[in-house]
Amino acid sequence: MAGTIDHVTGEQMYKLAERLFPICRSITGEGVRQTLQILQEDIPLEIREIPTGTPVFDWTIPREWNVKDAWVKDPSGQKIIDFKKNNLHLLNYSIPYRGKMALAQLKDHLYYMPEKPDLIPYRTSYYTEKWGFCLAYDQFKTLPEGAYEVLIDSSLSDGHLTYGELHIPGDLEEEFLLTTHICHPSLANDNLSGIVVLQALAKYLLSIKNRYSYRILFIPGTIGSITWLALNEGKISRIKGGLVASLLGDRAQFHFKRSRIGDSDLDRLVEYVLTNSEYPYTVMDFIPYGYDERQFCSPGINLPMGNLTRSTFGYPEYHTSADNLQFISANELEKSYLIYRAVVRHWEMNRKFVNLIPKGEPQLGKRGLYEAIGGKSDSHTIQMAILWVLNLSDGHHSMLDIAIRSGISMAQLHQVSELLISKSLLSEI
Amino acid sequence: MAGTIDHVTGEQMYKLAERLFPICRSITGEGVRQTLQILQEDIPLEIREIPTGTPVFDWTIPREWNVKDAWVKDPSGQKIIDFKKNNLHLLNYSIPYRGKMALAQLKDHLYYMPEKPDLIPYRTSYYTEKWGFCLAYDQFKTLPEGAYEVLIDSSLSDGHLTYGELHIPGDLEEEFLLTTHICHPSLANDNLSGIVVLQALAKYLLSIKNRYSYRILFIPGTIGSITWLALNEGKISRIKGGLVASLLGDRAQFHFKRSRIGDSDLDRLVEYVLTNSEYPYTVMDFIPYGYDERQFCSPGINLPMGNLTRSTFGYPEYHTSADNLQFISANELEKSYLIYRAVVRHWEMNRKFVNLIPKGEPQLGKRGLYEAIGGKSDSHTIQMAILWVLNLSDGHHSMLDIAIRSGISMAQLHQVSELLISKSLLSEI
Amino acid sequence: MAGTIDHVTGEQMYKLAERLFPICRSITGEGVRQTLQILQEDIPLEIREIPTGTPVFDWTIPREWNVKDAWVKDPSGQKIIDFKKNNLHLLNYSIPYRGKMALAQLKDHLYYMPEKPDLIPYRTSYYTEKWGFCLAYDQFKTLPEGAYEVLIDSSLSDGHLTYGELHIPGDLEEEFLLTTHICHPSLANDNLSGIVVLQALAKYLLSIKNRYSYRILFIPGTIGSITWLALNEGKISRIKGGLVASLLGDRAQFHFKRSRIGDSDLDRLVEYVLTNSEYPYTVMDFIPYGYDERQFCSPGINLPMGNLTRSTFGYPEYHTSADNLQFISANELEKSYLIYRAVVRHWEMNRKFVNLIPKGEPQLGKRGLYEAIGGKSDSHTIQMAILWVLNLSDGHHSMLDIAIRSGISMAQLHQVSELLISKSLLSEI
Repeated sequence: MAGTIDHVTGEQMYKLAERLFPICRSITGEGVRQTLQILQEDIPLEIREIPTGTPVFDWTIPREWNVKDAWVKDPSGQKIIDFKKNNLHLLNYSIPYRGKMALAQLKDHLYYMPEKPDLIPYRTSYYTEKWGFCLAYDQFKTLPEGAYEVLIDSSLSDGHLTYGELHIPGDLEEEFLLTTHICHPSLANDNLSGIVVLQALAKYLLSIKNRYSYRILFIPGTIGSITWLALNEGKISRIKGGLVASLLGDRAQFHFKRSRIGDSDLDRLVEYVLTNSEYPYTVMDFIPYGYDERQFCSPGINLPMGNLTRSTFGYPEYHTSADNLQFISANELEKSYLIYRAVVRHWEMNRKFVNLIPKGEPQLGKRGLYEAIGGKSDSHTIQMAILWVLNLSDGHHSMLDIAIRSGISMAQLHQVSELLISKSLLSEI
Repeated sequence: MAGTIDHVTGEQMYKLAERLFPICRSITGEGVRQTLQILQEDIPLEIREIPTGTPVFDWTIPREWNVKDAWVKDPSGQKIIDFKKNNLHLLNYSIPYRGKMALAQLKDHLYYMPEKPDLIPYRTSYYTEKWGFCLAYDQFKTLPEGAYEVLIDSSLSDGHLTYGELHIPGDLEEEFLLTTHICHPSLANDNLSGIVVLQALAKYLLSIKNRYSYRILFIPGTIGSITWLALNEGKISRIKGGLVASLLGDRAQFHFKRSRIGDSDLDRLVEYVLTNSEYPYTVMDFIPYGYDERQFCSPGINLPMGNLTRSTFGYPEYHTSADNLQFISANELEKSYLIYRAVVRHWEMNRKFVNLIPKGEPQLGKRGLYEAIGGKSDSHTIQMAILWVLNLSDGHHSMLDIAIRSGISMAQLHQVSELLISKSLLSEI
Repeated sequence: MAGTIDHVTGEQMYKLAERLFPICRSITGEGVRQTLQILQEDIPLEIREIPTGTPVFDWTIPREWNVKDAWVKDPSGQKIIDFKKNNLHLLNYSIPYRGKMALAQLKDHLYYMPEKPDLIPYRTSYYTEKWGFCLAYDQFKTLPEGAYEVLIDSSLSDGHLTYGELHIPGDLEEEFLLTTHICHPSLANDNLSGIVVLQALAKYLLSIKNRYSYRILFIPGTIGSITWLALNEGKISRIKGGLVASLLGDRAQFHFKRSRIGDSDLDRLVEYVLTNSEYPYTVMDFIPYGYDERQFCSPGINLPMGNLTRSTFGYPEYHTSADNLQFISANELEKSYLIYRAVVRHWEMNRKFVNLIPKGEPQLGKRGLYEAIGGKSDSHTIQMAILWVLNLSDGHHSMLDIAIRSGISMAQLHQVSELLISKSLLSEI
């Protein structure tokens, strides 16, 4: 895998996040389309449009939501809340509305956080028809009595749910699935970080020859993964592992949340990669709450897919205006990218072989695989790697199993397995 | 299960123990019949009579033993050991005897404990024909030389082995079995405590509608359980769990001795109940010694039945005249009852379900099961309970499994499962 | 097993080692034959001769190597390296050579250890045609410039590979396999210790009646075990456990290296014996490097065979002239023998039974197996052993399983099982 046209830098990822930040995304609408079109500039993403009303498992594709403008004017006529300044101000999926009302009546439509008084909260109402505005509690407290004018120039009408899909065929039809949600408006860590890391990973995977096929989904949260699963049921059995990417730009240590299965190859591999990385990390058992692993790990799907993040959801800046471009950095995005790249590299190496001369050891010397002068009391890693691969390659042990049992890195075992294949001592199953 | 005509109090249990205490019980005889008749006053116990000579597995129902009187008179003609004062004085199952003899000869028939000089031991000789008396070592030491007169007005003749059985049918034919021994004479903790707690539990189970059927056996130790098993082989496979009740009136912490299987649903459930109780407890692995779990856990029977006690056998007062009504209390009997009741309540709740919409999450919002405003970072227990039950209800996970994995109580999960059944999202298997 | 004509003493083992020490052994040749003939004086060993060129799995029986003399003379004509003084001086399997050369040219053929300057290393070149001499670095440094004369009067020609095999039939066709290598020249711990301990064990096993059959192999390392396996494939499935014996004369604690299987009966039994011995020990997982367990545990053979040693290979004296008769002692050889004997004794005891009266407990009293007076609160080990054996003898639990679960020694359980067999309560499966 040397000499590939890797290197997406952290700066490139950060610049993409800066460009995507102002766009007002939701689970449907033009913001999602614009976002995907920008991603298409670098990778051959296919953009799928699923019509409103399409049944997807227990759900139905909702009407498409778009916003032209939204604001609140105070009794003096001043625009005090303005969607164009920060799209978090508008309750996401607000129905269209125009009207004038007293403060008391307006208050029923205002969302704020007394415990974080200087931050605008991020709120949504996808499946209940409402309108509303979000604002800092510090601002809320200063609102004078009087008549307020409200405009929400949004539309909620038949259209499409839009998502992006990139399939990178490999030698095998079996797939590794990578997904991230694309439904959050101006939030940097919770959303953009996952998008830019997966775009970088897509570029890496497109630049090399892979054993596995890879599928990368840029989808709205919940409804998006349910939609993909419902429309692609025939492909689900091909997916042998995967990760839901999110929260990858902040400074927290890595957090890996295991799949529902808990001890699948994916689970053990990601833990192996983290253990052997230079970074601190925490591994957590599956819980049925979080990102789209909820859908991929629902009991009728039950894929070996985990969620690999930096922070976990619920950090202080989560779903507030503080989750902005200052909260993430090029440096941290790059670290996250490197760990994701390490996961797919190790996934590629995690093969199972059979020793073709399984009775007794093969005579390594006659194949140039043994040090010429025997009897020396020191043994070398490469020699041990040969012996471990031959001894445990019985069709049941993966390279990960052998790495864990031997203490020799998967990379070294991989090298040795290539050597043993070339000497006709090993064969993949 | 609210609104049931529970509350048997500890005082009621203690009063019953007081009434039963003076009766001379053994593995057969009138004492057992009297005891069961007293229990019949409150619960519809069926009294079974199995004739002497009936073969039961490797054993045979012995002759029935009854005692009218028994005493020893010293050389001065004074009655110094008197069965009527304490039935422990007579070696249980002593053959009839009348005679006069020197002290040296009498001593071959006396049982005492030099290490507990002020207590009368409890001794039996069911299957070897003997006669004898038990007395305090302090008394034994003072016996003067001379001729002693001995009377044992007992009978050992063809009759019956008697036990009590209560079957409480539930929705399922599958049973939970509760047993206690009834063969001890005036001993309070070792025997009466188990009898009064199971009688209270019977009253509770009779007062409510149960999913499982319950069977409660009041039986003589060893021969009684062997008899029931031998005569009811066809019913054994219905028993899905059970407890042998004994030693439930003293102040020791709870001790749960696992079944021979060790990790059955019963074992895990009792441990769960104890862990979530307010009381200290110890869990012990099965050993083939103790109470009737020895029979229920013999290799050819191997039922998931444990033994849940306060003290374990062998405590200082065990099988002595110190195991009397002062050794037990209403308060401790009540605690024991509450734990037994908790076990059957949780046993009832320990069901397995299948999620009827297993692919992706069902849309909770449209069923009124989701908080209306999304995006809030705090999740509530009820919401998590819904997600856990839906996620793990794949037919393989019991409510106990889900409780252990989620950290949410079985009671809360039970509530949620009823809610999900009502919304057609869940079905019992 | 009392009263057997055991006692091989440590002194006898040490004396045998002294006698075998000077012989120049290799993987073939007269040294091996002489060694086996000396062993034949005490045990009816069969000596097998396998012709050069015979294919054995991936290997071929090599040409036979024999040496008459070998030396190096310095420029002054003095014999400074002499095979007859220490056979380690000659690179084992050196081809014949006679010549004169400058020091620089000679140096290409000299082996020494700067890090252990006073010791002669042990080196071999079985499968690459070479000649060479081994010497202490202290001597190497003093070699003057000038012309050296070299003689290696060895022969490398068609002949045989020789090994010794002793089959001791028992009641069962199933076998326990014991092997040691016999290919090392004058090295005491690494080789002779294994030979003399297995010879002692053979004498013990020949002196008693055994349930299992035993097979003891005295074979050249690697090629010897591969040869035996290749020529006896039909017998491999009879082998239910075994040990590779080596490094048994030094003062280190015991080291048990598990089989590749890791939790076989053999693995658990050896650990049990060590745990219950008076000696300190370490248990190590299998690695595919070491002695002939490499072959017996190759993936296509995968026998439950471990390696039980004192030191592990790679100790400071390993493969040097310091591994001599002073490095081992009679006392340590005897300890090693006792542990090996304990392993086979426990192996013999590790049977599986079925309780013939599995439903409820059998009535022990009528068979004289129960203390006459019941109700006593102390239980005795023998009584508990009876109950444990009856309770767990369901065809699935071995005596080792019962010993571990009950905490009662296998020896006591063995006694009790014989008693229960005599009472028709137990039957072997």
